[in-house]
Order: sequence, then C-alpha cells, then structure tokens
Amino acid sequence: MKRLYIALLAVTFIFFSYSSHAQSSVMGFSETAAKTQLDLESEFDTQIVKANLDDWMKYMSARPHHVGSPYDKKVVDFIAEKFKAWGYDVRVEKFDVLFPTPKIRLLEMTAPTKYKASLTEPAIEGDESSTQLDEALPGYNAFSIDGDVTADLVFVNYGLPADYEELERRGIDVKGKIVIAKYQGSWRGIKPKVAAEKGAIGCIMYSDPKDDGYAKGDVYPEGPYKNEYGVQRGAVMDLPYQPGDPLTPGYGATDDAKRIAIEDVTSMTKIPVLPISYHDALPLLKALKGAVAPSDWYGALPITYHIGPGPAKVHLKLEFNWDLKPAYDVIATLKGSTYPDEWVIRGNHHDAWVHGANDPISGLVAMMEEARAVSELVKKGFQPKRTMMYCAWGAEEPGLLGSTEWVETHAEELKEKAVAYINTDGTGAGFLGAGGSHTLEKFFNQITHVVEDPQLGVSVFDRRNAVELANGRPAWSHYKLGALGSGSDYSPFFQHLGIASFNMGFGGESSGGEYHTMYDSYKLYTRFKDPGFIYGGTLVKVAGRTSLRLANAEILPFEFQHFTKIVSGYLDEVIKLSSDLRKKADMKNTLVDNNVFNLVNNPKDNLKSPEAEEVVPYFNFAPLENAMRGLKRASNKFAKSSSKGLTSSKNNIAVNAILKDMERELTREHGLPKRPWYRHHIYAPGFYTGYGVKTLPGVREALEQKEFEEVKRQVVILENVLIGFTAKIEEATRLLN
Amino acid sequence: MKRLYIALLAVTFIFFSYSSHAQSSVMGFSETAAKTQLDLESEFDTQIVKANLDDWMKYMSARPHHVGSPYDKKVVDFIAEKFKAWGYDVRVEKFDVLFPTPKIRLLEMTAPTKYKASLTEPAIEGDESSTQLDEALPGYNAFSIDGDVTADLVFVNYGLPADYEELERRGIDVKGKIVIAKYQGSWRGIKPKVAAEKGAIGCIMYSDPKDDGYAKGDVYPEGPYKNEYGVQRGAVMDLPYQPGDPLTPGYGATDDAKRIAIEDVTSMTKIPVLPISYHDALPLLKALKGAVAPSDWYGALPITYHIGPGPAKVHLKLEFNWDLKPAYDVIATLKGSTYPDEWVIRGNHHDAWVHGANDPISGLVAMMEEARAVSELVKKGFQPKRTMMYCAWGAEEPGLLGSTEWVETHAEELKEKAVAYINTDGTGAGFLGAGGSHTLEKFFNQITHVVEDPQLGVSVFDRRNAVELANGRPAWSHYKLGALGSGSDYSPFFQHLGIASFNMGFGGESSGGEYHTMYDSYKLYTRFKDPGFIYGGTLVKVAGRTSLRLANAEILPFEFQHFTKIVSGYLDEVIKLSSDLRKKADMKNTLVDNNVFNLVNNPKDNLKSPEAEEVVPYFNFAPLENAMRGLKRASNKFAKSSSKGLTSSKNNIAVNAILKDMERELTREHGLPKRPWYRHHIYAPGFYTGYGVKTLPGVREALEQKEFEEVKRQVVILENVLIGFTAKIEEATRLLN
Repeated sequence: MKRLYIALLAVTFIFFSYSSHAQSSVMGFSETAAKTQLDLESEFDTQIVKANLDDWMKYMSARPHHVGSPYDKKVVDFIAEKFKAWGYDVRVEKFDVLFPTPKIRLLEMTAPTKYKASLTEPAIEGDESSTQLDEALPGYNAFSIDGDVTADLVFVNYGLPADYEELERRGIDVKGKIVIAKYQGSWRGIKPKVAAEKGAIGCIMYSDPKDDGYAKGDVYPEGPYKNEYGVQRGAVMDLPYQPGDPLTPGYGATDDAKRIAIEDVTSMTKIPVLPISYHDALPLLKALKGAVAPSDWYGALPITYHIGPGPAKVHLKLEFNWDLKPAYDVIATLKGSTYPDEWVIRGNHHDAWVHGANDPISGLVAMMEEARAVSELVKKGFQPKRTMMYCAWGAEEPGLLGSTEWVETHAEELKEKAVAYINTDGTGAGFLGAGGSHTLEKFFNQITHVVEDPQLGVSVFDRRNAVELANGRPAWSHYKLGALGSGSDYSPFFQHLGIASFNMGFGGESSGGEYHTMYDSYKLYTRFKDPGFIYGGTLVKVAGRTSLRLANAEILPFEFQHFTKIVSGYLDEVIKLSSDLRKKADMKNTLVDNNVFNLVNNPKDNLKSPEAEEVVPYFNFAPLENAMRGLKRASNKFAKSSSKGLTSSKNNIAVNAILKDMERELTREHGLPKRPWYRHHIYAPGFYTGYGVKTLPGVREALEQKEFEEVKRQVVILENVLIGFTAKIEEATRLLN
Repeated sequence: MKRLYIALLAVTFIFFSYSSHAQSSVMGFSETAAKTQLDLESEFDTQIVKANLDDWMKYMSARPHHVGSPYDKKVVDFIAEKFKAWGYDVRVEKFDVLFPTPKIRLLEMTAPTKYKASLTEPAIEGDESSTQLDEALPGYNAFSIDGDVTADLVFVNYGLPADYEELERRGIDVKGKIVIAKYQGSWRGIKPKVAAEKGAIGCIMYSDPKDDGYAKGDVYPEGPYKNEYGVQRGAVMDLPYQPGDPLTPGYGATDDAKRIAIEDVTSMTKIPVLPISYHDALPLLKALKGAVAPSDWYGALPITYHIGPGPAKVHLKLEFNWDLKPAYDVIATLKGSTYPDEWVIRGNHHDAWVHGANDPISGLVAMMEEARAVSELVKKGFQPKRTMMYCAWGAEEPGLLGSTEWVETHAEELKEKAVAYINTDGTGAGFLGAGGSHTLEKFFNQITHVVEDPQLGVSVFDRRNAVELANGRPAWSHYKLGALGSGSDYSPFFQHLGIASFNMGFGGESSGGEYHTMYDSYKLYTRFKDPGFIYGGTLVKVAGRTSLRLANAEILPFEFQHFTKIVSGYLDEVIKLSSDLRKKADMKNTLVDNNVFNLVNNPKDNLKSPEAEEVVPYFNFAPLENAMRGLKRASNKFAKSSSKGLTSSKNNIAVNAILKDMERELTREHGLPKRPWYRHHIYAPGFYTGYGVKTLPGVREALEQKEFEEVKRQVVILENVLIGFTAKIEEATRLLN
C-alpha cells in the first residue's frame, strides 16, 4: 500500500492538517495523557482471549432464549454473574412488556388447488440446536394482530409504495385481498403498513431465494445461505413511529406504570401478517395468474412471476397470546474516578428470536470480553475518569423494548449524565462497518488507524479503504461513519434523547441467511461467520478503545468540522431532491399531456397511462444555507481554539459540560412530524424505509411525501436547530480562548 | 403529442432546416416527381392484403424446410411460381454448399451421478407442427466438428474473454475440460471459439431461463417464451472471420468451382459443440461443485451456480454428415425503364432451422406482398426507373451461404450496378427497428414520418420516438439508423462489396423464445408475435417505399451530413476508448502494485490478485481528426449544392454514377486485419461479439485487443479511406455546380 498511501496522506493533511499527529496523538488527550492511554490500550489488547467469545457463545446460544423464555433468564443470570465476578456493580432491571407469541398459525391455499403451508423449519443433520423445536418460537411476526381472513392473493413485489403505483397502472386493486410480498427492500414492518393503507386484509412475507437463498450461495447446511425452509421472524410494530413497549408509550414499563389497553395501541399492524419460507411461497406464487410481473419484480424461483389477483385464494388465520413478559436489562457499572456522573454507556442485547448465535450473541460476547479485559486493567490499578456502564438489553427483538423502557425510565438522569452510547449487535468477519454521530467521526477515525485487521497486517481503516479503491472510488481521507437509522438499541439513546452514539461491527465476508431463523446457531456461526472469532477479537479492540478513550479523555473528543461537512452534504442532497422531484413531476406531466405512455405501451397490455401529478413548488432553502454558513464558521473557530490545548482545569470542566450536551441540541421535544418520540432533527429511521436512515428527516420526508406546507415548517425548525447548535459551539469556543 | 412536437420540430429545423419540406418533399425527387411518387405510394398501400401474409406463412411454415430438405424445395418452387405469376423475370440459382447435419448426438453425465440428456423437444398439444419430428433437424450447431470427448465440466458464464479472466483469478483452467456456457451475451459462435483458444476440448451451450425462459414470461404453449425443452439451433462457423460456403471461400460455389478439402476449412470450430435445453442443463449444473459463481453469472435455475471443474464429468459425442446440399436463390427481376443497369435489390431468406414461421417467413411474406403490390402497380402502367430485384435466399441459417455465394459469383456485376440492398428477416409487432448505411439515414427518416403505426394513429417515427421520451432521453431529431453488424443476408452486400444497405423490421412487442427451435411455428406466430399480421402489413409499407423511392429517384438520395456526424461520433468513441483503456490499465496497475486486491478479497477465497497489465500508449489520432474536418466541410458543401436542384440531365447521370459507388469508397480490397473478406472500414461484425457491430473496426478492435502497432497501421488506412471518400464527395459537388 506504499505508493497509494503517499497520495492519501497528502489529502488527509490538506483537510485535517491541524490535528494529524499520527499515532502518538489521541484526540481529547494531552501529549502525556495520550502516552499513558496508548500504554493502557496495549495492555488491554494483551488481555483479550478469543476462546472466551467461543465458550460464552456456546453456552448462551445452546437453547432458544427469546423474551420470557426459561433460557433467557439463564442467559441473564450468566451475564450478571460474569460481570459480578469481574468486579462490576451489577443491577438487573426488569420491565414487564407486551410480547405476543403465536397460538394459532394457519396458512392454506383453498383454490385453484389445495396447499397447506408447513410453516416449519426441519432439523438439520449435524446441527443439534435445530432439533430443539419444543422451546423455540416458530416463524411469526410479533405485533401482527389476530385475524382470520380468506381472499384472492396478489403478489406485490417488495410491497412498497412504488410497487402499488405499478399495480395501479395495471388496474389492480388490493382492496379486500391478501398480499404476498418479498422480504427485503425495506424494513419488514413497512410492508403490512403500506398493504393496510391500500386496503389489503392480510399480508404474507417470504424470503425469495434471489435476495436470500440459493441465488446468494450454498444453502444451509452446505453453506450459510437460507435453505428453502428458513423463515425470518421479526417484529412488525410500527417502529419508525415509536419503538418500545406498546402499552407504555414514551415512559418506562415499570411495575407501577399505567398501561394502556391493547385496543388503544397504535403501533400494532392493522392486518394479520405471517412470514413464510420460499418452500411455502412457491406453490402460492405458482398458482397466481393475471398480469406477468415487471421484470425487476422477479425473484429466483423457477416460475414466471404473476401478479394475480387469484386464482390463488388463501386462508390466513392467526391468533396470539397477548401476555406481559419480563424484559431483563443487566446493567454493570464501573465508577469513574474524576467524573463519576459522566457516563460512557456500552450495550448489546441478549434476547434472540431462537438461538441467536449471530444475532445478538456474537456482539454480546465481544462486549463481555471487552468488560472482562477492562476489569483486568482495574486489577492492575486502572480506574476510568468517567463511569463506564456495560448493558445487556432484554427484549430487543420485538422492538427495542428493554433498552427503550430503560432509557424512558432513566431519561432525566441520562440527559444529564450520558456522554455517549456505544452499541453492537451481531458481528462477523471482514470489514469494519460503523455508523454514528459525526461529531465523533474524527475521534473514531484515529481508532480505525491503530487497530490491525487480524488477517492482513494492515489497519482496519486500510482494509476498509481498499474497498473504495478496488471499486474505482477515491481513497477515503478518513474513516467515514454511516448515518444511523434504526434496528438496534441505539435508537432510544440517540434519536429519542439525543445522546451521541455509535453502532459498529465487522462484516462483508460472513454473509448468510440465518438471520432470525432456527438456523442462527453456534454451529453455523463457527463454521461460516467468524471461525476462530478472529474478527470478534478485533471488534473488542475497536469498541474497547472507543469506550476507554471516551472514559479517559481530558477534553471530550467532540469536534464539529466533520459534522458540518456531512450535514452540509445532507442539505445539498435535500435541495437537489426538491429540484429532482420537480423535474421528474414536470417531465412526467409533459409525457402524460403528450400521450407518450400510450404510444410506448403495447395496446394489448391495457396499461393505463399514469395520471399527471402535483407539481413541486420552489422552496426557500436560504435560511438553511445561511445557518450552515454560520455553523461552518463556528466549527472552524472551535477547531482553531481547541488545537491550542487547555490550561485551566476549571475551563476543561466547563467545556466538557457543553460538549457532553451538544447532541441534545440537535433534538426538539416536539419531535418529528407524525412521530413525536423521534426527536433528533438530523437523523431518523425512514417513515417508509424502517431501518434505513433519513437525514434531515423533517424536511426530507415532507418533500418525499409531497407535503409541501410541512416542508416550509420543517425548514424553520431545522434552521432553529442549526442556529442553536452553532451558538453552543461559540459558547465552547469562548471558554477555550 | 402536440406540445412536445413543437419543441421537437424546433430542434429539427435547427439541424436540418435546409431540407425539411414536410410531407410533399421526397429526397431525390423534384417537386413534380415527388407528387407522382407520393400518389404511387398511396396506390401501393391500397394494394396490400394482409391475408396474403397469413396464407403464405401458413403454407411455407407447414413443414420443416431447412437447407436441402424436400419441403425447402417446395417453398422455393412456391416462391418462384408466385413471382412468375406476378410478372417478374424469375431465375432460381442453385449453389451446392457444405451443410453438415447430425448423425450422432450424445451427451451424458458419467459422474458423480448418471444423466443422459434427452436432446429432444416434445410435441406441444395444440401445435400440430411440433409433432413433425421426422422431417425436422434436431438441436445441433452447424459446423461443429465431429468429436468424442469425456472430461470434467466447467461453467464459464457466457464464455466470453472477460469470463475467462474471472476464472483465471480463481485459478481455474479449462484446459482439457468441457465447458458449459449460457447462450446470449454474444453471437453463439464466439463461445466455442474462445473456449478452444483457452484449451477446452468440448463446449455445451444452453438457454438459461433468466435470459430466455420463464424469467422472461409465460413459456410455450401458455406464452411465447422458451419452455424447458426448447433448444436454440444455429451455426457456429467463424462468421466474423468469413461467412458463406466453407469449401469455396471468397468465390461462388458454382458447379465448376474448385472446392477445398474439408480438412483445410478454417472457419469450422476447433472443438465439438452442442446446444441443449435448460431441462438438460439443470442436472449438469446442479452437479457442479467448486467455487460459487460470481453473482452476475447467475441464471434463473433454482440452484446455487458453481463453476467446477467437476465433480460433474460429461461425455459428449458428435458425428455429422458432411454433405453438399443445394442452396436455392430465387431472383425475381423487374427491369428499370431509365436505368436498367442500376439495381435496387431487396432480399429475405427462405430456409429455416425448422418451420421458421418467424425466422425467416414473417419477413419473407412481407417482401412477397411488397413485390405483389408493385406488380399491381405495373399492371396499372407503372415502370420503375431502375431495375428492382426481389431475392429469396437459401441457406442463410448455416452462415449466409445462399446470399454470400450469389454475391461472390456476381461480384463484379454487383459492384458495377447495385445501388442499394434492402434486407428483412424475421419481424413482429411494436416499434420500427432499422439499421443501415448512414448516407441513407436522412432518406429513410422521411419514410418513417409518412408511414403510420397500424394501431395508434401516429407515424412509426412518432411511436419509436416515444420510447426515447418515456425513458427520459431527448426526442429524436430524426429516425436514427443503427449500425449494421452481421446475422443476416446484408453482410455480403454491405461489408464484402460495399453496397449501401438496410436491415429492418418491427419488434419490441413480440418477444419470445421460439428462435431456432421446434416451436417457431405458425401457431406461435399468429398467437403471440403479430396476430392479424398488422405490423407485417406496415413493414410492407416501409420497405416498399424504400425500394420504390430508390428505384424512382431522379438523383439518388444519398447525402453525407448524417454520415459525417455519425462517423465523427464513432471517432470520438474510439479516442475515448483509448483513453479509457489507458486509465483503466493504469488504475488497475496502481491497485495491483499497492496490494489492494489482496486487501479486499476474503483470504479464505484464495482469489489471486490480477497481474499488472500492459500500459496503453498515447496514439496520434490527429490524421483522423483532420480527415474528419475535411469530410465535414465537403459534406456541407455537397448539401448546399444539392439543395439548389439540378438542371442538366447529363449531370444527373454523372452525379448518380458517383453516388451509386460512394459506399464502395469505404472498402479496401485488403479488408480488415485477420479477416480480408470483410472490406468495409466503417462497419463490421465484432471479432469477439459476432453479430454485434464494431464501427471503425480496424482501429477499434486493434485497441480492444491491445495490438498497438496494428492501431497505428489502421489509423493510416482509415485516414486514407476518409480522404478518398471526401474526394468523391467533392467530385460530385463540382458536378452539381
């Protein structure tokens, strides 16, 4: 990598010349403190024992351990005992949360031929855990309503709004019908949400082998990909609206909390939903007739995909136990020496859909090994400046329930004390992937340069950067954090309370189809995902440094130039989006007015020309551009001032107090339109993508959903957010000078 | 289309304002003559009887009629009698050509399990012609050599050079192996050619359902797409090297022609080749292990595609009858009144792989109806100025044998007399597709504006243009002719002799999988391809106008501004290609030098880093750019002069004499590198694409194949061609003034 690196470093120096002190500098640390910190990290590395990850995964994934199951309690006890043994102060907090489990699951085709879906995942020879059917939850979607419906079937591709536009052009209405949608293309909960909006009375989801099966690679047990029987379980509560216990929306599900009636829950689906395997989907799809699906709707089943409706008619009957179940959060604390009331929080959930070797145990064991290695440092006399907390969350799978209830319960204290939240979940082999607050991107970049890839003798940054180069893209000047959407326990910290967060893991060489199936087993993980836990060990180094540096920093390592550059990019995107949408609508309307659609279509296909659509007005984005200019100036001044270093420890404390709260400045109590629980105005999960992030969500989604008055309101709110954030930076800068 | 048309016409006027006299002007005709011509064309239209197309297709596709079959002779007699009845002077010219037919076809898997390929296309209920197995040629590739080979199987995607680079990176060598390649991605003959170059000892080709089967739509008989048993027959002689009878290369296969020995034939494959159905391919592909194929190699079979080699081992045994068979060309002539020695030649082949309802009969019946309608005009007193010839070619399917032998036999006379050649082959419903000499693009554009789409009440130009608009591309200022590669009977006229040519037909709403299978039947055609022959009738109008206008023009309607613009674009492409290849090689070498490939690859996959490749030098393209500037100036002057009109009929004759021979100026006797038969230096079929065109082929292919000394030689040749062409234009311009 020599030749390339010369060019790369040159670029880095141009942009970041004021701070690149190579390996010996650590953001937030004086030169002397950095030395001590780097020694500490070397010592930390030597403590890591990869065999622990293996042993603990073997134990914790030995039996199904979903929310409320006997083995989940055993896992909780195991974790708590470990942390106690390592000297942590351990509490187990219990929240009783609504967790529906299936009572009746019936799916049958009643016409034109009969077929009863098996809805089972057979045992795999050589993988003992797949035989434990008694304790396992079968394939289902948590928070589907009960239902008993019979209707003609319609294939709706991924079941997203654009797919229904295609149906409309073909004159196909799903009203009163049952839809079958492929998994993927969005978070699963979007599919029944949109189907219900369109009038469907039931929704079936299946994993098509093109996206998740033999077209990806060899299927289990020959390879890690989804075999014909694998079923992806998963929650379908309206997560982009609000996660957490549906009976205690916005507040903790403590013993004495007031619970609303199930009938009043708004985040449940409106129609019954069931996930099935491609083995069960094939006979249904094969029986469909009517229009042939557009070519980009095709999966990899050996059929011509038809849309229907019918003649396939299906009967879907679902009943659930609507019980409260205990969600246990294990909270292990190591008190800080200097700032005990500043918390660095590290978390990973422990509940699984079945055995969950990958999801969540692979991340959990890395976190536990990190905590154990830290405890070894403590034995040698180390004490972090700030309080370090290791949290193993319960009930993440049905909708981030354990973390959300904990955050809602301790919201005021967290807003006061939390410095940052570092999340992991499943992890594997390959390249470092990380998302998070861009105020910490520069900080995190340093870590990616000092941790080595366990196979190739280069830094994890270099390895990740090689992906860019190999794809003909320019070299990364620094490690680029993704923007966080949702799908794991950072959401309540980050998007609800405004606590700077990370989510990280390794991947890219550990793909498979085990996600939320019976086959996410120890056997599969150790054969295919990260044999020898070599990348698991590297994750301990990356996440451990993130925790330890945040815990020990003299000045919290937030800065604002990276953030400003990123958000400025988001603003450019949004402005371009408005112009693209305008051009697209104008172009489409011109084509409609001029009959072009009728001229290109085959008259015998009877495709309707789309209708002319609402034109997109021009918006005043100047307030945002002006606010961005102010932010940029303030960020540059802060960088200049902070590069001088501090002298007075009194000012240190005052600056840290401001920095700690900066992410909160990006939130507003009133939250986002239609979903007040989501308070962050820079990052949110997409209302129609689910896990996928929408940045500057207020403005962006109002544009996408063509709510033009809302665009104007959100511009004002975002301007206000940026101006407030800028003022805080200026305040910190004054203290630095 | 109103609003859009205002904008479109504005554009048209800017570029072509000197000639747009709307409907009443006809290129090559004075105002008075144009009026007569347009009246003639109206009368021509009224003569067209679509039922004739139906009746004749029913008769000619009733039985298999491949080269040398009893029914092909009946078809020839039928055509000849029709033309005679219509008053044409008819000759049937017979050439005895090498046409191998299968004696033994055996394909079996011998390990790890046994499977014997069925190699049959079962009868389809309701399609009587599919039961005629006795007379039909089964699935085979003509001009495969005999062979009896057994070896491990390797899946090679489409079997193109880039696919072998992927294999090489995986350390997979096909030497001594049998390869299985998907059809498509190139002309079929390329696959065994490349496989043999790489050392394979046998080649199997199959139609994957992703490209040609259920993933395209409902399969026959439910729909027109390829069912699991359909097998694409076809020639695999080295067509991009030279078409025609292999025993008489470059000269006519007349009775007294000297025939070379079969052993000396160079255009035969080097290894045995057999085409199979996806039904027969599935067990073989399923049995392959080894590396999983790259995701873009995947087809739509319900398997994980592996590359091998093995453990699937196959035995392929092929033996052919190496017989001479008669190829009959029916030549029907209508003598010209004013210029009997100037020939406008119209052609379509009559031989089929089996019944050939679509290929070639759908085009043939349109040509016959055109000839019949012209004969009705003759009955009413019309006589064309130039001689019109209607030709029904034999033995096109095995490699353009009938047309090539005829052209080679009559080469000197054709170079003297041929004005243009107009080809059709299969045709269907939808949009007009046409390729040809760009010196006739402006001429053809006028025709596309006056012939109406038979369903939508707009011109065929407007309908084709709607495709551009609907795809967000700018409106066409004029009908754009494609560049001709190969694959039908225009090749000997166009690329061997330099006779200005067209190839045209309708398509886009008549896709299917019947091509070269047992199922290209009357039944399939009339159900799915062009029910009621409504687009067949429209093709008569378009091709008929092309013939009639060329036959009657006062000044031949060639011009050079369109040509110049197009060729100038080709030159830009070639210059960009050299720069892209240079950048790509430099980029790749940088990545190789810096170990990037090893950093992005999963170490456990054992993917080799590609090797550094030869750098691409800078070339002197200035001679071509200077020549283009000269051509542009000359073309503009010619346009200016010709727009004034002519006065002296003596000059008319002199100008026509030059124009008639213009396309010949683009050829050179020495032909292209490695393939002297191909003499055209602007258009050729690609050496590694087959049917696909390569424009400026000498320079472009030398670049692509990294033969850098050849690039320099070809630049000189092309410069010379362009300068010679320019000089002829200047000569014509002088005569006009």
